[in-house]
Amino acid sequence: MQTNSIAAVARTLKEADSILISGHVMPDGDSIGSTIALGLALGKIDKNVAMTSPHQVPDIYKFLPGSNCVQQGMPEGKFDVFVALDCSVPDRLGDELQSLVNDSVTVVNIDHHQSEKPFADVNYIDSNSASTGEIIYDLLKEMNIELDKNIATNLYTAIASDTGSFKYEGTKPTTHHKIADLLQFDVKVAHVSKSIFDEKPIEVFKVLQIALPTLEVSNCGKVAWISFDLMAKDRISAKDEHTEELVDYPRRIKGVEVALFFREISTGSVKVSMRSNYFVDVNKLAARFNGGGHKRAAGCLIDGGISDVREQIVAAAIEAVQRGSLND
Amino acid sequence: MQTNSIAAVARTLKEADSILISGHVMPDGDSIGSTIALGLALGKIDKNVAMTSPHQVPDIYKFLPGSNCVQQGMPEGKFDVFVALDCSVPDRLGDELQSLVNDSVTVVNIDHHQSEKPFADVNYIDSNSASTGEIIYDLLKEMNIELDKNIATNLYTAIASDTGSFKYEGTKPTTHHKIADLLQFDVKVAHVSKSIFDEKPIEVFKVLQIALPTLEVSNCGKVAWISFDLMAKDRISAKDEHTEELVDYPRRIKGVEVALFFREISTGSVKVSMRSNYFVDVNKLAARFNGGGHKRAAGCLIDGGISDVREQIVAAAIEAVQRGSLND
Repeated sequence: MQTNSIAAVARTLKEADSILISGHVMPDGDSIGSTIALGLALGKIDKNVAMTSPHQVPDIYKFLPGSNCVQQGMPEGKFDVFVALDCSVPDRLGDELQSLVNDSVTVVNIDHHQSEKPFADVNYIDSNSASTGEIIYDLLKEMNIELDKNIATNLYTAIASDTGSFKYEGTKPTTHHKIADLLQFDVKVAHVSKSIFDEKPIEVFKVLQIALPTLEVSNCGKVAWISFDLMAKDRISAKDEHTEELVDYPRRIKGVEVALFFREISTGSVKVSMRSNYFVDVNKLAARFNGGGHKRAAGCLIDGGISDVREQIVAAAIEAVQRGSLND
Repeated sequence: MQTNSIAAVARTLKEADSILISGHVMPDGDSIGSTIALGLALGKIDKNVAMTSPHQVPDIYKFLPGSNCVQQGMPEGKFDVFVALDCSVPDRLGDELQSLVNDSVTVVNIDHHQSEKPFADVNYIDSNSASTGEIIYDLLKEMNIELDKNIATNLYTAIASDTGSFKYEGTKPTTHHKIADLLQFDVKVAHVSKSIFDEKPIEVFKVLQIALPTLEVSNCGKVAWISFDLMAKDRISAKDEHTEELVDYPRRIKGVEVALFFREISTGSVKVSMRSNYFVDVNKLAARFNGGGHKRAAGCLIDGGISDVREQIVAAAIEAVQRGSLND
C-alpha cells in the first residue's frame, strides 16, 4: 500500500499554522486518546489547534486530560491542515467532517487499519501498529515534541484501549517499549485502566441481570449465544452501549469457538454480533447474511422475529464450526 | 528489610547439583509460571531439577509448557537447595513442604511481597517488583541463562497474572521492558491472555446466572454487594473457585467504593470478601471482624445467618466509606 513517510507528516504539520484534528464516528479510546495527544502536543509548539469528533466524547473518556477541548462536529473557521485519525475510509469521519476531504484544506490521514485506497493528501498508514496511538507516539518523537503527563496519559489510553490492555494479537515488543517510556511521565496506570476497562455504569449490570438467563450453549459446546429483546430493553432504561459487552459472555465459555449476541432493535429486526476465538472466519459467516466485519468480529442485521433469526444463525454457526474443525 | 543480593542467589544455585523448586498453596499464575520458568532454565544448565507445588496445578495453567513436570507435594530424594517462590512466610508452602525450612537443605526464598522476617538461608525480596516472575527474569539474566519460547511463555504468564495484564498499580516501566524482551521469543500473547484471563468453565457462568440477581447497591451508591448461599450452591455443581470473580461485579459499578461478596460456606458460617477501589482500607474493616488482608482486598469469616451478616457488614462498610470520604 502506497503511503508517505512519517517525516512527510511531520513536515506538513510543522509548516501549518492552524490544524484541525478528528477521529472517527462512535469514538473509542484510540480515536479520542490519539486526537487529544496530538492536539496537546501541537499546542506545545504553538500551533493553532482545534480537536473535534463526529460524535461526543463518551463518558468513560471524560477523565482524559484535555477531553474538554474536544468539540463535536465541524468547527467554525478555516484550517491549513485537517488530520484524520484512525479512519480507514472518509465515511468513518461522519457526514459533516468527511466533506473536508474534498475541500481545499490539506488532509493528512494517520491510521493503523489496512486500507485499499488512501484518501488523503498525505497518508501514513502502518497496519503493523496495534493502535493509532503508537503512530502518534512515533510522530511526536519525529517532531521532537517533548511528552508530558497529559500527553502520556492520552497515548497510554489510546494504546491500551486498542490492544485490550496488551492482550491482543497485534501487541508487539515495540508496544511495550513505548508504554515503558510513557509510564515515566507518571501515568496513573491503575486509575486509567479502571476507567477504561473495569468501571461500568449500573445499567450495564442491570442489562446483564436480564440477559444472562438467556445464555445458551449448543450441544457440541462450540457455539454459544445470548439475547436481548425489546421487552427486556423496555424494562430498564438501557441504551445500546450498555449491551456492548454481552457478547463476551458466550465468547468466554471454555470450549466455545463462535459467540453470538442477538439484539432486537425493533419489531422484526435483529442485530447479530458474531465473535470467534480461534479459527472460524465470522466475516464470511456474516457475509452470508449481508453483513461483514473482521475474521474474529463481525455482524449483520436481519429481518425476522428474534427466535427465528436465532435458530437460523445458530445453525449456520454450528455448520461453520464443523467445517472449520475439518480444515484444522 | 534485610535481604541478600541477586548475585548471592545466582551463586547458590550455580553451586548446587540438585534443586527443588516450589511456589505457594492455592497457586496462581505468578507462582506456577515462576516455578516452571526457573525449573526449565536450571535444567538448561544441567542441574538436577524437581518442580513441585503444595496444591495441584490449576486447570487454567495446564497450557503452560512444562506444567506436566510440576509434581504435587514433597518429592522423594534429597536436594542441595530448596527454592521457595512467592511465599512471604513458610506457612504459604503448606504443611509438607515447609518442613524443609528447618531441614539441613539450603533454603532460598525469592519473593516480591513485603515480609517482616525473612525465613530462608538466602533471601531475595524485592517488594518494588510487581511479580515474582520479574525477579526470576532478573535472576536468569544474572545467571546468563538464555531464554527460550517456553521459559518466556511462563515468565509472561507470571508477570501478566500478578499485574492483571499490566493494569495494577505496581506495573512499572521495567515491567514493560521485560515483557518487550519476552515477546521476542514468540510468546503467543493472545492465546496466553485468553487462557489466563478470559476463558472460564461454564460453571462460572452458571454461578453468575444465580448470583447476579442478588447484586445490590446502597442508597449512597458507594457500597455494593453480591451473595451466594448454600441453596444456590446446591443447585449447580459449582466449586468455590467458580465464585472467585463474583466480587468484581459490585466492585466494577461506577461510583462504588467498597464491594462485598457474601458466601455461605456452611449453615451459620459466612465468608466475606471485601474490595475497595480508591480510599477505604478494607484491611482495617476486615480486622474489626477478626479478618485481614490488604488495603484494597481483604476478608473475614463470620458466624451467623447470611442475611444478618450482610446487614452488619454492609452497615460497617457504609460507615467506613463515610469516614473515608471525610478524610479525603
